Amino acid sequence: MSSSFKRVALIGKYKSPDIALPLLDMAHFLEDRNISVVLDRLTASHIENCGFQVLELDELGAVVDLAIVIGGDGTMLNIARTLAPHSVPLVGINQGRLGFLTDISVHTMFDTMGHILAGKFVTESRMLLAAEVLRDGQTAFEVLALNDVVVTKGAAGNMIEFDVRVDGQFVYTLRSDGLIVSSPTGSTAYALSAGGPILHPNLRLMAVVPVSPHTLAARPLVVSGDSTVEIRMHEGEDVRVHFDSHSHFNLHGDDRVRVRCASVEVRLLHPVGHSYYRMLREKLRWSESL
Amino acid sequence: MSSSFKRVALIGKYKSPDIALPLLDMAHFLEDRNISVVLDRLTASHIENCGFQVLELDELGAVVDLAIVIGGDGTMLNIARTLAPHSVPLVGINQGRLGFLTDISVHTMFDTMGHILAGKFVTESRMLLAAEVLRDGQTAFEVLALNDVVVTKGAAGNMIEFDVRVDGQFVYTLRSDGLIVSSPTGSTAYALSAGGPILHPNLRLMAVVPVSPHTLAARPLVVSGDSTVEIRMHEGEDVRVHFDSHSHFNLHGDDRVRVRCASVEVRLLHPVGHSYYRMLREKLRWSESL
Amino acid sequence: MSSSFKRVALIGKYKSPDIALPLLDMAHFLEDRNISVVLDRLTASHIENCGFQVLELDELGAVVDLAIVIGGDGTMLNIARTLAPHSVPLVGINQGRLGFLTDISVHTMFDTMGHILAGKFVTESRMLLAAEVLRDGQTAFEVLALNDVVVTKGAAGNMIEFDVRVDGQFVYTLRSDGLIVSSPTGSTAYALSAGGPILHPNLRLMAVVPVSPHTLAARPLVVSGDSTVEIRMHEGEDVRVHFDSHSHFNLHGDDRVRVRCASVEVRLLHPVGHSYYRMLREKLRWSESL
Amino acid sequence: MSSSFKRVALIGKYKSPDIALPLLDMAHFLEDRNISVVLDRLTASHIENCGFQVLELDELGAVVDLAIVIGGDGTMLNIARTLAPHSVPLVGINQGRLGFLTDISVHTMFDTMGHILAGKFVTESRMLLAAEVLRDGQTAFEVLALNDVVVTKGAAGNMIEFDVRVDGQFVYTLRSDGLIVSSPTGSTAYALSAGGPILHPNLRLMAVVPVSPHTLAARPLVVSGDSTVEIRMHEGEDVRVHFDSHSHFNLHGDDRVRVRCASVEVRLLHPVGHSYYRMLREKLRWSESL
Repeated sequence: MSSSFKRVALIGKYKSPDIALPLLDMAHFLEDRNISVVLDRLTASHIENCGFQVLELDELGAVVDLAIVIGGDGTMLNIARTLAPHSVPLVGINQGRLGFLTDISVHTMFDTMGHILAGKFVTESRMLLAAEVLRDGQTAFEVLALNDVVVTKGAAGNMIEFDVRVDGQFVYTLRSDGLIVSSPTGSTAYALSAGGPILHPNLRLMAVVPVSPHTLAARPLVVSGDSTVEIRMHEGEDVRVHFDSHSHFNLHGDDRVRVRCASVEVRLLHPVGHSYYRMLREKLRWSESL
Repeated sequence: MSSSFKRVALIGKYKSPDIALPLLDMAHFLEDRNISVVLDRLTASHIENCGFQVLELDELGAVVDLAIVIGGDGTMLNIARTLAPHSVPLVGINQGRLGFLTDISVHTMFDTMGHILAGKFVTESRMLLAAEVLRDGQTAFEVLALNDVVVTKGAAGNMIEFDVRVDGQFVYTLRSDGLIVSSPTGSTAYALSAGGPILHPNLRLMAVVPVSPHTLAARPLVVSGDSTVEIRMHEGEDVRVHFDSHSHFNLHGDDRVRVRCASVEVRLLHPVGHSYYRMLREKLRWSESL
Repeated sequence: MSSSFKRVALIGKYKSPDIALPLLDMAHFLEDRNISVVLDRLTASHIENCGFQVLELDELGAVVDLAIVIGGDGTMLNIARTLAPHSVPLVGINQGRLGFLTDISVHTMFDTMGHILAGKFVTESRMLLAAEVLRDGQTAFEVLALNDVVVTKGAAGNMIEFDVRVDGQFVYTLRSDGLIVSSPTGSTAYALSAGGPILHPNLRLMAVVPVSPHTLAARPLVVSGDSTVEIRMHEGEDVRVHFDSHSHFNLHGDDRVRVRCASVEVRLLHPVGHSYYRMLREKLRWSESL
Repeated sequence: MSSSFKRVALIGKYKSPDIALPLLDMAHFLEDRNISVVLDRLTASHIENCGFQVLELDELGAVVDLAIVIGGDGTMLNIARTLAPHSVPLVGINQGRLGFLTDISVHTMFDTMGHILAGKFVTESRMLLAAEVLRDGQTAFEVLALNDVVVTKGAAGNMIEFDVRVDGQFVYTLRSDGLIVSSPTGSTAYALSAGGPILHPNLRLMAVVPVSPHTLAARPLVVSGDSTVEIRMHEGEDVRVHFDSHSHFNLHGDDRVRVRCASVEVRLLHPVGHSYYRMLREKLRWSESL
């Protein structure tokens, strides 16, 4: 039986030589099934004489119909964000430690990939956040985020103060260490450490989570994926905004950070029988009581 | 201009004689505008010679096209649940202290009602929870709840243990004081005290909030309004389930409590310019920092 | 070398036949070292023809100079409270699962007890809470607690309201599910589930921890072991007070619960090298991150 | 009746010209009672031709027997830390908004100071933290803090990782935004925002409070004032330590931050009848429920 996936991208964790071996193994596994393999240039740089086609990551999206990522959640986060505009489905393989996004173990990857290539998989869509920084009415910065947009105090370490609006309606002025606008995917990342709720990943929602708020009655707030969350700084000095702990931007006085649901989505493929709750139980050790 | 509301129910907080005066004032205000007034029987019992039509609460729903409730959130909760199957829109008037559901002050009620009767209002739909207790495969109890379904330890005060499933998938076994399944409306009630997030009231979601969990990593979980949450008791003795802090049911071993989104909704009318966030700010005192 | 412990009590978890074998093994281990063994009557009832001296638990305290408890933290809690007035030091042996109070594994108990009998141990003192219920100015109930005194809503499940005073000074009126007054030992029990801090067990302090408070800004409060915490109920109906989840008392209107540090202490013996923090790490799984 | 205070320092909030008027008023009030007035140099710089003796802040301590601070908690914090080694008692006057440390209103200051000068006051001692940074076995930085010592992520905003030891015993490796070691005085400052307990100010304790910990089961820990808390960084890049949000220090790899109780204390004078709990109630709005 031939797979509906004709050309597959292989991407490994960057600066991680350990990834070469499982990557090559997977590449040969795919070739044996008459599937074309493409490596992204950075991944290929870890592999001598790899012999496979090599493309830049942002070129890959246009030519492959599946991307296999070997690494951790951080790698997956970056690849997912980049490939999302191309609607390339993603499979995440972890190197031994279960991830929220990389649910397939490297130890069982051939077995699991065999099933997926044979069409036995479930598809899951995850929303992305579209964030922009507005300065003097102009877009000064624009980026997609799969996990979160985090406004935070800068190096001086002083509490920051800002206004939050949802759909143009004033919510509150907050004094805190920061504020997280999280997607459902990001709700098990930084937002969870800050006291936010877990949002089922298939929902189209944003969680607005204060970080160490001075206002003791401040609580995490969950709003619609159709809403726009806007954060306007009171004092510009020494405030930063981070996107997926990956890119960042220094905010000035009166800058506004605007977050909404992106028009593109991330598509993850899971083996049949995948359970989000099993993964949560294992990652959060819910089966263990005092 | 004549109002589109021809027949209006007036309902007051029960066992509250103070309500008689504003109720009568409102009744005359409506009559002056050629609107028929109907009182529910319990409300009427507080008013001597009231002279208005009187019906049982569950008869009211079929004959009125608006219900005005004067009292607090507790009264509103009970009326909303009862009238929801009839799709009667509701207006909530508080006796001086702003409520989450009763946003109109008795002090400004004529002015506000004048606008609402003239068609100047916004309509808000709120989801209800449909809960049932299953015993030996049969429905042993069934009820609607606007705020929450709360499984809790009984009088002996010992921690309880139960399994939680969402859409048939096992989530966890929890040892705790209890578990709250909350609607967005209920997210600012008991669930908030237990550490749950605030869900915007227009969303169709349920929050699953552990109460004093023994498992330290347990966190509030937000699931779709299309999901079914099921709680199965490990030990039947000494567990109760409460619905809106109003009705309750004693659970036996192996009983299951099943919660989903009800097919009916509550419709609230607010004056134009009503802001959910302003109400939150005022109720939760978000404007006040240390 | 002869041990300074001449007569040792052996006490097992009640209603637990599994305990018979390790208990007898320990009894013979002690006899072989010329140490007299005394069993408490309830423990002995699980063992046929045990052949050892048997006494009531409350008689044991006067005649032994060490008590070895085999079971879990619940057993240890009860024994510690009863033997505290006699200053009998305690050793806690768990049946396989590490406890906060029972730090010695049944699998290594002979080795560890050998060291302890040879004088190689560290002694730790733990404060107890002395609680009383005052009704109409009279003491209606009085008890010691090693973990906590918990005022809680009764079976009806409605929030309760009460005043808290420390050293006669009004602290607040709280509406909540309840209030915990915890010793350092109890700070890793129920109080921890309710959001209280961990108090190092050698401190003489009490933590006052609200349970699901309606007042969002209520926070756990730590006061001196020389202080007196007093809780006065607003409405007597349907409120209970629990002591170590063991004994309880139904409160009436205007009853006061008064908690202070007891004059007696619990003495625990640990093997040399015992580390409270290692135990915490293991019990709370602090070594495991997301 | 002559006061036991012969020479009094007057210190105002820096860079705050509004303070000049109440300061001069207080200065004349003291002179009228034959008390010598000394201003610190920075305070005096806001007042033209003030005509009073002026000294550097660190010279003041040796010559006055009382210091009156007019400003907010931030000012009080700085002055208290500087004057603590001289055992000068302090009175805190707020400019209208009650502070945790500045409990006397500028509106009633003459009345209250009249009583205090007449000997009608209560003295309260507050512990200070003595912090040092150790690099290569040497003390690289040393400072007193009245509120807290805060290890925190730097500008890049990535989570940090470090080991915590108490009295040389390993507690845990934590991945988090940071860690707060707080005195009882600081327990109502930043530590409270991060979820720490309130420690009664007369206690000699330290609270160790994780900030947004990745380890979900991490909890605030309260240790003795006789203990030493040591934080050792895993990766030196991009970590800072703040002392009372006032001074700070950039940490390198393997640096250790050591915190213990200082040998000197702060002495605060309060009017008779001062209640710590009343102040908490007002500041934290405990009297207000949902």
